[in-house]
Amino acid sequence: MNETTAPKLLVRAPVTVRWGDMDAYTHVNNSVYATYVEEARLQWFRSLDAGWMGEDAAPILAALNTNFRKPIEWPAEIVVEMFAGRVGRSSFTASFRIINRHAPDVLYAEGDSVLVWIDPRSGKSIELPPHVRAALG
Amino acid sequence: MNETTAPKLLVRAPVTVRWGDMDAYTHVNNSVYATYVEEARLQWFRSLDAGWMGEDAAPILAALNTNFRKPIEWPAEIVVEMFAGRVGRSSFTASFRIINRHAPDVLYAEGDSVLVWIDPRSGKSIELPPHVRAALG
Amino acid sequence: MNETTAPKLLVRAPVTVRWGDMDAYTHVNNSVYATYVEEARLQWFRSLDAGWMGEDAAPILAALNTNFRKPIEWPAEIVVEMFAGRVGRSSFTASFRIINRHAPDVLYAEGDSVLVWIDPRSGKSIELPPHVRAALG
Amino acid sequence: MNETTAPKLLVRAPVTVRWGDMDAYTHVNNSVYATYVEEARLQWFRSLDAGWMGEDAAPILAALNTNFRKPIEWPAEIVVEMFAGRVGRSSFTASFRIINRHAPDVLYAEGDSVLVWIDPRSGKSIELPPHVRAALG
Repeated sequence: MNETTAPKLLVRAPVTVRWGDMDAYTHVNNSVYATYVEEARLQWFRSLDAGWMGEDAAPILAALNTNFRKPIEWPAEIVVEMFAGRVGRSSFTASFRIINRHAPDVLYAEGDSVLVWIDPRSGKSIELPPHVRAALG
Repeated sequence: MNETTAPKLLVRAPVTVRWGDMDAYTHVNNSVYATYVEEARLQWFRSLDAGWMGEDAAPILAALNTNFRKPIEWPAEIVVEMFAGRVGRSSFTASFRIINRHAPDVLYAEGDSVLVWIDPRSGKSIELPPHVRAALG
Repeated sequence: MNETTAPKLLVRAPVTVRWGDMDAYTHVNNSVYATYVEEARLQWFRSLDAGWMGEDAAPILAALNTNFRKPIEWPAEIVVEMFAGRVGRSSFTASFRIINRHAPDVLYAEGDSVLVWIDPRSGKSIELPPHVRAALG
Repeated sequence: MNETTAPKLLVRAPVTVRWGDMDAYTHVNNSVYATYVEEARLQWFRSLDAGWMGEDAAPILAALNTNFRKPIEWPAEIVVEMFAGRVGRSSFTASFRIINRHAPDVLYAEGDSVLVWIDPRSGKSIELPPHVRAALG
């Protein structure tokens, strides 16, 4: 049987583009997309019921891969959707899409990020906390 | 007779604070307040019916004075209010307040800005365009 | 006798303008000037021999007033000069100038900032630490 | 025969980390790495003898993939190295490394970017201009 399941949506973060997000090309600067994705990631972290950062467990961003599909111009209202991907021992992949809030077919960017849980004292990776693993579904 | 009139409200711009607006002190960085004020200014520019930037007339920010009253921490929803101040030949002063969107008594910052209209080709100041002067009331 | 003394130079911080500092007007965005001034301020803080931030004493920026004199365009090398101003019980004023590193007569911006020392636990202002007061001359 | 050639170094861009590049974790924020890479890219664009942006040919960033290897803390002096990768009809891949300026073995991040040349009027991809292709070696 060839069963496919849609990736689990972790968070939908609405973001309002600011004029200052644009650069000298009058498009939203590429580095600001990382800030949009960060906003979704942090909102998801914050939604985890047992906390997401402590003395002995904290996430770090290990990789961020972004494909820019369409320029964004101010004013614009967008949504960042973050989905659970492959889950490993101490890390997981989360994919994302940046779309227009009022026209969800308009895809501005898509990509994925790798998040690793570490012990902040040693900097070493640790097993994903159970409540994080549970939230990934 | 000693009549005082409240300054004219030019724009109320809601802004949603982003996690990345914070700096290493875990408060919104002081430079980001300027971005919040800019967002209100640009929304007001955009509302001017005869356009706000052209080949022969454009505004520049000549001064920005900010008093920081209370730190802002993510997550937060704020509003930037911009008011008309003294109007001169080629420039005007606009004051601003940054408040909490859900608790308007919470004042995060206040200050004023000076905007000058120039001829972009010469860089020289020009008379305020009539529609700008009219919008200032 | 009417003796005037030049304000004491606290720090000269060279800064290299980044392309991304520019906004849709292809000039350095006004909010980035605050980042340049911050860089000078933090370099000065860091030079204080007894440290500048601790459990019971830390500086906060209470005000920042900037006059924009001349647009900055990438690429550019600038210097931020910070000078001691009026010193009070718990606060002091520091003025600043942003100039061209290779043509010091080219003044991009000037202004002043107010720094207050607080007890981070209570948020209340405290007396300026003696080593800070000494550094102000 | 198994001949390998080192990728061609396109540009080495020194960057000085600013205090404001750090976020609430007191490390340089992930989005700022994109700004560092952008600075190298723009310095390389600027070095192209026949110009890099015109009415009928301009580059856009189509993808940016970053692996974060080691946190950066202010103060720090870094270098962004950009290398030519695979060259196609209208695009090429450029890899990059962000290292410590004074300890080149310290690798902060590495990754690659995809640059596409377009006709800004139509938004359609065009053949890489000959002087760009030549510069890629």
